[in-house]
Amino acid sequence: MKIINNPPPNEWAQLLKRPHQDDTGIRDNVIAIMQDVRKRGDIAVREYTKQFDGVDISTPLVTMEEFEHAEKETDESLKSAIQTAIQNLDTFHRAQYPETVKTETTNGVSCWQKPVPIDSVGIYVPGGTAPLFSTVLMLALPAKIAGCSDIIICTPPDENGNVHPATLYAAKKAGISTVFKIGGVQAIGAMAYGTDTVPAVDKIFGPGNNFVTLAKQFVSMEGVAIDMPAGPSEVMVIADESSSPEIAAIDLLSQAEHGTDSQVILLTKSEQVAQNVQEETYRLLEELPRKEMARQSLDFSKILVMNDDEDILRVINFYAPEHLILSTQNADSIAEEVENAGSVFIGSYTPESLGDYASGTNHVLPTSGFARAFSGVNLDSFFKKITFQQATQTGLENIGEEVMTMAAAEELEAHKLAVKLRLKS
Amino acid sequence: MKIINNPPPNEWAQLLKRPHQDDTGIRDNVIAIMQDVRKRGDIAVREYTKQFDGVDISTPLVTMEEFEHAEKETDESLKSAIQTAIQNLDTFHRAQYPETVKTETTNGVSCWQKPVPIDSVGIYVPGGTAPLFSTVLMLALPAKIAGCSDIIICTPPDENGNVHPATLYAAKKAGISTVFKIGGVQAIGAMAYGTDTVPAVDKIFGPGNNFVTLAKQFVSMEGVAIDMPAGPSEVMVIADESSSPEIAAIDLLSQAEHGTDSQVILLTKSEQVAQNVQEETYRLLEELPRKEMARQSLDFSKILVMNDDEDILRVINFYAPEHLILSTQNADSIAEEVENAGSVFIGSYTPESLGDYASGTNHVLPTSGFARAFSGVNLDSFFKKITFQQATQTGLENIGEEVMTMAAAEELEAHKLAVKLRLKS
Repeated sequence: MKIINNPPPNEWAQLLKRPHQDDTGIRDNVIAIMQDVRKRGDIAVREYTKQFDGVDISTPLVTMEEFEHAEKETDESLKSAIQTAIQNLDTFHRAQYPETVKTETTNGVSCWQKPVPIDSVGIYVPGGTAPLFSTVLMLALPAKIAGCSDIIICTPPDENGNVHPATLYAAKKAGISTVFKIGGVQAIGAMAYGTDTVPAVDKIFGPGNNFVTLAKQFVSMEGVAIDMPAGPSEVMVIADESSSPEIAAIDLLSQAEHGTDSQVILLTKSEQVAQNVQEETYRLLEELPRKEMARQSLDFSKILVMNDDEDILRVINFYAPEHLILSTQNADSIAEEVENAGSVFIGSYTPESLGDYASGTNHVLPTSGFARAFSGVNLDSFFKKITFQQATQTGLENIGEEVMTMAAAEELEAHKLAVKLRLKS
Repeated sequence: MKIINNPPPNEWAQLLKRPHQDDTGIRDNVIAIMQDVRKRGDIAVREYTKQFDGVDISTPLVTMEEFEHAEKETDESLKSAIQTAIQNLDTFHRAQYPETVKTETTNGVSCWQKPVPIDSVGIYVPGGTAPLFSTVLMLALPAKIAGCSDIIICTPPDENGNVHPATLYAAKKAGISTVFKIGGVQAIGAMAYGTDTVPAVDKIFGPGNNFVTLAKQFVSMEGVAIDMPAGPSEVMVIADESSSPEIAAIDLLSQAEHGTDSQVILLTKSEQVAQNVQEETYRLLEELPRKEMARQSLDFSKILVMNDDEDILRVINFYAPEHLILSTQNADSIAEEVENAGSVFIGSYTPESLGDYASGTNHVLPTSGFARAFSGVNLDSFFKKITFQQATQTGLENIGEEVMTMAAAEELEAHKLAVKLRLKS
């Protein structure tokens, strides 16, 4: 972690550049798999599972017995923790329930916008060494609260053909009973196009590696909605003399341990703080089981010493971090001014882990600076909004003339006649 | 327009297939232009404008004089119509203003979601034979209401290097003074990457031909947000014995006149209604200046005679029309059951033209069945939502143990330590 003093704004872009992923080499591969799954369905899926996950699975749908087994295998303390997470996620997301707002724009012209849950959604839960049951909760619960009718999960099997018990337990507690042991590009293909076994869905959610992300982007060009493009995870921590260097350091590390391409940035006004946090980071690093991964991630990472709070805010909004931890004394007032960020953690008792698991907010957030225009997953992500309008005869009379004038100016004669013939009758 | 009686559900997909656009032939072209604009900026833009719009434009930014000229050139009746549209659009979109909702999920843990306007947005307004000033209003007004700081418009110049006065007048009335005479793929490239003249934006809105759509999809894979993928326009009209066949016919035609690839579908329970509307459609067609275009579009189009209202609803929700006109006696009750549609027009006094121009709802809507998962443009499209959380010491004590349990189960030790070190201190 290099410490940089007061970099001028024209250097920010270069300094804060995200680790670049070059996907051109894998693009053709991803597209070929997608097209194969579209064409050959379940047979292709089975072959890719064999090839990539090293296991032959004839019936990928998780059975009742597997769910029961998962429940038995899951530790009681984890069960209780999941229950807490569910409760808080439920409270927070339910509070965001969108309403139909009706307006009379002109006497006799009523317009409204009605949120309707997306009928069928697919959730991708990555595999890997650790179970990502928290991602199940983050995506399945809001889908349930929104009222989506069909919710399915795809997640890769381990080498024995199993899904981690905690993942299945979380799915069941979230009310999802349709889980397929399918991962990677073939899972995205199956959910986008449908196979005999896997139903096609209207929107696909969930994080994944760059293969999965490319596959999601590919289907999004064909009209299947996706939550957002996902990149490597990142955190920006703001610290001052009031912050514990040890805590700032562990906050940086709790992002760095996600992967070698995670990016962590510290902003501070004090050189002393910069040095202290740097020291603590490398000290604590040694205590971590994932220290090799975290160390590589720290190589990409920076500590910027800025002149004043204004510059700190400018850097925050320029970078648009996925996670922003404000550990300074003036955390509240900085929070008010944040314009670009995924999720913000305010004050010294709010580590990112709270939002990752159980504060109630969603942890599926925009990375790579996408927070400038994208929201994290929220209840709205599971709805589409339909507009309605209804005019009475008076309503049509009130604006009909103007509509005809505009239709004529755009040279759309039938648009004009559609009003004229109605007014005549 | 072919009349089809009671097609079984397994034939719907084939019958209601959208006219297919094969973009593979132009994809490389689009990408090459985008990369050239990224590399050579204004110089490349100028060359493409010369090549595609047939005019050499050294300074694409519309001047104050051009705005003043546009105001003089615009007809008074059109000005007054635009004023009405602005008023209704303002009323409707302002009513949808999103609020910050704050919740205490656990004692001591506050979470909220705050809508923040997207800083900079770019609006693409297609050129063509007729001015599309209504699209300017539909995109610029909500951007203004949301509070986006920088709003720019790109629109192609005509062969004399001018933009239609009505387009400029609408921009000015909507409060936008930055309009560039740049169209096509080069406009999307300029807004995505920025040039010396055109600032880069965070999100690009607006309809366009398949070149523009491909360019938008291309930048969306690079992290610039877009409103939605756009396809040819479409309408579904539901009529019964109470509907005027002439009015149902003009409603079909007012979609068909948009372009040869527009798709129009009539659903009815009565064969007689089907025949009457078909007859009226071809009779009225002869009165339209764009009849050749509309005739070609009718070739793709279908009249389906369905058994009952339930089947009609199933077809609506299966097709997910961009525009849905309910001209039946039971329009209200059908409207309640609509699950997939862009915008719905209820009753015999509500032609699509109202929503196209002045009812107050937005006319930038999901086509191609995307309404199953996408909303039309609405005020929310100009915001991103940031989540915040703040725990007190009590809050952290209340859920810290559970968070540590979950972090340990996901094998993320630093996540666990970030709680533990705080609780210790």
